Amino acid sequence: MGVNRIDRCGPQNSSDYFTVQYQKQTINSFESLIRIQDFVHQHAALARCQPQTHWRMWKEGYINLERRWDRVFPVCCSMANRQMRLMNEARARASFDPRELTSIIFGGPEAVKACEAAFTRIEQVLRTSDLDKLPDTYGDLDRTGQFLDGLHFGKAMVAEKLKHGHSVFEPITPRYWLANASPFGLHVVMFIPALKLLAAPEQLAYWLPLAESYKIIGAYCQTELGHGSFIRGLQTTATFDPPNDEFIIHSPTTSSTKYWPAGLGYSASHAIVMACLIIENRNHGVHPFIVQLRSLEDYTPLPGIELGDIGLKAGYNSVDNGYAVFTHVRIPRKHLLARHAQVAPDGTYTADSSRPKLVYGTMLFARGQLVANGYLQLAQAATIALRYSVVREQGTLPFTSIPEVAELPLLAFRAQQQRLLTLMSRAFALMFAARSAGSAYAALPDQGHTEYRSLELAHATLAGLKAYATQTVADGVEDARKCCGGHGYLAMSGLPDLVATTTVLATLEGENCVMYQQTARFLVKCVHGGADIDATVAYLQDSADPELLRPAVDILDSGEQLRIFRHRAMRLVKEYAQAFSASQTRDGLNPAQAWNTHMMGFISAAHAHVEYTVLQSFVEAVHQLDTGPTRLVLQRLCGLFALGCIDGPHGLGFFDDGHLRATHLRRAHVAVGELLDNLVPDAVALTDAWNFSDASLASALGCWDGNVYERMMRWTRQVPLNAAVAKTGNVFRPGFEEFIRPILKGKL
Amino acid sequence: MGVNRIDRCGPQNSSDYFTVQYQKQTINSFESLIRIQDFVHQHAALARCQPQTHWRMWKEGYINLERRWDRVFPVCCSMANRQMRLMNEARARASFDPRELTSIIFGGPEAVKACEAAFTRIEQVLRTSDLDKLPDTYGDLDRTGQFLDGLHFGKAMVAEKLKHGHSVFEPITPRYWLANASPFGLHVVMFIPALKLLAAPEQLAYWLPLAESYKIIGAYCQTELGHGSFIRGLQTTATFDPPNDEFIIHSPTTSSTKYWPAGLGYSASHAIVMACLIIENRNHGVHPFIVQLRSLEDYTPLPGIELGDIGLKAGYNSVDNGYAVFTHVRIPRKHLLARHAQVAPDGTYTADSSRPKLVYGTMLFARGQLVANGYLQLAQAATIALRYSVVREQGTLPFTSIPEVAELPLLAFRAQQQRLLTLMSRAFALMFAARSAGSAYAALPDQGHTEYRSLELAHATLAGLKAYATQTVADGVEDARKCCGGHGYLAMSGLPDLVATTTVLATLEGENCVMYQQTARFLVKCVHGGADIDATVAYLQDSADPELLRPAVDILDSGEQLRIFRHRAMRLVKEYAQAFSASQTRDGLNPAQAWNTHMMGFISAAHAHVEYTVLQSFVEAVHQLDTGPTRLVLQRLCGLFALGCIDGPHGLGFFDDGHLRATHLRRAHVAVGELLDNLVPDAVALTDAWNFSDASLASALGCWDGNVYERMMRWTRQVPLNAAVAKTGNVFRPGFEEFIRPILKGKL
Repeated sequence: MGVNRIDRCGPQNSSDYFTVQYQKQTINSFESLIRIQDFVHQHAALARCQPQTHWRMWKEGYINLERRWDRVFPVCCSMANRQMRLMNEARARASFDPRELTSIIFGGPEAVKACEAAFTRIEQVLRTSDLDKLPDTYGDLDRTGQFLDGLHFGKAMVAEKLKHGHSVFEPITPRYWLANASPFGLHVVMFIPALKLLAAPEQLAYWLPLAESYKIIGAYCQTELGHGSFIRGLQTTATFDPPNDEFIIHSPTTSSTKYWPAGLGYSASHAIVMACLIIENRNHGVHPFIVQLRSLEDYTPLPGIELGDIGLKAGYNSVDNGYAVFTHVRIPRKHLLARHAQVAPDGTYTADSSRPKLVYGTMLFARGQLVANGYLQLAQAATIALRYSVVREQGTLPFTSIPEVAELPLLAFRAQQQRLLTLMSRAFALMFAARSAGSAYAALPDQGHTEYRSLELAHATLAGLKAYATQTVADGVEDARKCCGGHGYLAMSGLPDLVATTTVLATLEGENCVMYQQTARFLVKCVHGGADIDATVAYLQDSADPELLRPAVDILDSGEQLRIFRHRAMRLVKEYAQAFSASQTRDGLNPAQAWNTHMMGFISAAHAHVEYTVLQSFVEAVHQLDTGPTRLVLQRLCGLFALGCIDGPHGLGFFDDGHLRATHLRRAHVAVGELLDNLVPDAVALTDAWNFSDASLASALGCWDGNVYERMMRWTRQVPLNAAVAKTGNVFRPGFEEFIRPILKGKL
Repeated sequence: MGVNRIDRCGPQNSSDYFTVQYQKQTINSFESLIRIQDFVHQHAALARCQPQTHWRMWKEGYINLERRWDRVFPVCCSMANRQMRLMNEARARASFDPRELTSIIFGGPEAVKACEAAFTRIEQVLRTSDLDKLPDTYGDLDRTGQFLDGLHFGKAMVAEKLKHGHSVFEPITPRYWLANASPFGLHVVMFIPALKLLAAPEQLAYWLPLAESYKIIGAYCQTELGHGSFIRGLQTTATFDPPNDEFIIHSPTTSSTKYWPAGLGYSASHAIVMACLIIENRNHGVHPFIVQLRSLEDYTPLPGIELGDIGLKAGYNSVDNGYAVFTHVRIPRKHLLARHAQVAPDGTYTADSSRPKLVYGTMLFARGQLVANGYLQLAQAATIALRYSVVREQGTLPFTSIPEVAELPLLAFRAQQQRLLTLMSRAFALMFAARSAGSAYAALPDQGHTEYRSLELAHATLAGLKAYATQTVADGVEDARKCCGGHGYLAMSGLPDLVATTTVLATLEGENCVMYQQTARFLVKCVHGGADIDATVAYLQDSADPELLRPAVDILDSGEQLRIFRHRAMRLVKEYAQAFSASQTRDGLNPAQAWNTHMMGFISAAHAHVEYTVLQSFVEAVHQLDTGPTRLVLQRLCGLFALGCIDGPHGLGFFDDGHLRATHLRRAHVAVGELLDNLVPDAVALTDAWNFSDASLASALGCWDGNVYERMMRWTRQVPLNAAVAKTGNVFRPGFEEFIRPILKGKL
């Protein structure tokens, strides 16, 4: 029999809990499971086990067996409580095998396995796999503690990467936060890509090995106190000093203080500093320089460099976003990254013609990372909220006669179904869109200036998609939080962290309103463009009469949906392109004024274009799958996504020209209802498909086993404030003596 | 001359700063100002002064004089920097006197004065008025520190209230957060109102004086780990024990743990506990009981009561939202609050027929408080973002030739104008709506069961308005934060706190989807209702053909706007009321199923009704003002509000039935542009009108003087992490030794 040891465990009520350990290889058959079940039943207690096969459920005694994790996993209970039973029942309703979908999401079974192994190893290093323990960050970490935590998981990620040679933890952390959350994250996501984009070959040969082996740790130092992603406005100067063959890096004003770069405060040894190149009083514009910030021996800041942390933020307090004031700091001439512009010893300046655009390349790469990974956090939030919604019972429907019906799980309510399954559909939509867009920019860091046209297209595509994706993620995560009611506001739900880490993505690497306008500007160009226009925007030159489409509209067919989305995008782009022209010719505005007048219109036009391309990616991805239950569930999600856009906050553009009418909307409402009826049984399986480990979710509400309330109370009792007060007779002494007692005694 | 002392001050760069003190009475004329100006010029340094007259601006040397605060106020600078000059110039463009609007907002000049005095006093007590000092809460408070901070300002509020006999700090804190942020806040907002609603006269005579003099501190103990605002689902029991004439309060399950009540952890001495009344095994439903939690002498929890804090939340960590587990806790029979239900010594139970509804009264009162005060936080966020937008220069418009034009202030961009001024318009809209609704529920705590009909109306009105107002506030605050770019993500911007404290309002005291449905249910009733229907919903019985309205639509007239909003509301309510009937008669669904099918429709119908009433309140309030510049600016804001709803995320309902068309939308876009052109010069004056003290905003971005960058750097250098690291050679030793050095050395 597989079980070879049992241990008591659990910090509270320990008499209720047991650990069942066993020899891994024996748990590989139905017979082994039965043996474990018997064993567990016999002890009538919670068991922990890690079988190699799928979970099952028997009669009254439950045993949940999780095959995903190559380690002991706490999912077994012979006396499952009500919430765990509800979760099991919901999971059992699935119409498809979530592992098939996992394989689609992560790129095949081997990739899934490698990813699981990486998470398992890092969770062991970080000691986050004990679900009975309140995660440290939900306790009482002050800022220093949070920063140390960031250094801790940052180092673990570096070690994992170097030892096992994979890139799982390059773009994300072990909690699926973006790399920004680690003090060393942007070393990989911005510093190294910037080197590849901006360094001349001999410079790259010197710096890249140092960076890739972490002998130096880099920050990407662009934004200033008074300047963000508008690179041309930067004020830091790099003045060439020919006698010494050096540049002098200097912060001439308060507002030129470098401000925000991740890791700049206390973690980075070097930085790529964007600064205005000054030669003989002439400003040649912003160029990249490598500046050593700290001694590699003891990390003391080098002379003339003031470094510090910028203080508490809404999130990402695990990283030392920092500031730097440079006071006449001298660096060698060869520290100008010289792939696209060079300064000779005599001060002669030479540059590629496309140089001014290429300095934006690093931001472009970073935007690609946001798009390529941000949806994972939306999927996490949807996972937490959907799982909570099957075990949380709250209220009844109106017109229910009270004594006769019990409270309903949240997922029984149509509003909850629609909100959360729409979020799930958006996570998939963004994933497929990111994949389609990926080919446009994945190779960018290795492209030279010969590819300027494709850079322009990649820039335009990615700008709008970045805005669309980050806003969809942030809004969705916040909506998921709201769907969890009060408990979603608790740190231990994991949702406040998800909100805090995603809400800023609308700002990072280019503010979304600005991003949409960059796409819009490209689209307007395409309306008037020539024959060599890219296929993705060719539809803008179609001249079909939109009115002709109207009688044929079937809002439920994915092909028709695509035509509807395309019609909206084409109409809005053309409408505002025309209005833009008219404001100049008719009203005599200059182009900048005319653009400002129609700015909101351009933003909505770009949004419509991006949404069309997102739907297109989703529809195409579904079409490429083999017929079967997994394809069917994705097809339903795709329909829900499309109809959700039509009846959503940006839906007006489908209707105001009469292309769609109330009858279509009514059909959409009925269709959404049917889709939801079909998708609700798959809700838990959809969360399982994303394959998030419980430790990566770090959520008392979202764990795989559904044991929400007991876990919440176990974690609550571990809150450090409670532990401290318990030692002083359960009275919070400092507060009572100084504040409460004087109030009670009227001594104010 | 008025100046009688100067002091150096400021924690950094102290040589640059001076304090000018003076005898208050001398600064009351233009001559005094000139004298101060001369004095300041003479010293060429920053001055702090508090004159009794309005601010002025002279030539190159600026002196900003703020008449609002009865204390020294740091707004003067003879060497104004660029940001301060931009702020002064923007302020000088106003078309109206902001003090007139202040008077409208706060209810007359006397009320303004009293409010200012209260803020000045409490800011002195809390030592928050020094703008050179990083506010403590943006430094490094751990949870204990945050809780102590809450007790600190909570006690100050109690003292201020008892000493000066006003209610300024009953619904809000000195930062305009809602009372929930103070450990003693709900004592006034829920405990005392619940007493008034639920206690029998002799009980009230006993408990109310104790509560009002703070001899006891109360919590309102309703929600449980497994149950929220659905009161009927609560599981805590209160079992009558006739021999001892006692009730036994007990938590029978994990999920019945009382969870969330503010102050319950460590601050409250007593609680009103909602529990199921059990007499001889019969459950009479949920009733209110007064339970003493802690000894009034030493605050030790009484036997059988486990109390604790629920841990970190997304916000409100200054308050000890707590949990309580009751184990057979005995209380006297007379502790059942017996206004609406009584238990005789022999166990005989008597109750008013309307009792089951009346237990909701306390939540109703709390909802009223959210509606009546929540918009202040939206106005704060708009204030911070608008002020920042006039001094922050960032980028140029597309098609601007670069060398020729400098960067533009954010408020030059149409998108920024539209987003932020729309938020400002919404703050006013919610303010006027709250006033109109106020009469419907203000007197509720004193109403008895004789007023059941008006309670139903108040409940229906307030439920939807609560949902509308809290969502508008939370979305708006988040949008304002995004409008501030990266800096809006910094704690010291004040915006993350505003986001965290408002986002939860959608959940508190009734989840918004549920709230809208309660309004919808009432509206559906009204469609079929009789002659005694309330005036506010009478329009639902109009039978005018909506199509007849169409040719007459003038989207720019406020009367027409009201008709457009009313049409949408009427159409949607009737459409879903019909669909609801049809689902029953045609599809054979029971009412609960039919409701669930059309739930999203009912939510949108209720939203449309509420939005109509909000616009109605705004339009009526503007009409009642005297003609003049102040009325004109409010009229413009009202227009912006209305057009923003039409072209906003819920605008589809105006268009899908063809009532409005693309031509209307185009007219609206032009009109919005004109309104914005007129409102932008008033932007800073609109922020001044709200009269928020700098200390209450606690924002490095939103201060009155516009000195953003210098203040940010001053505050950043005070970040405790930086101060600590400065002592160890500017190296973060623990992080370097344990994490960074091993990485650099390849020792992983």
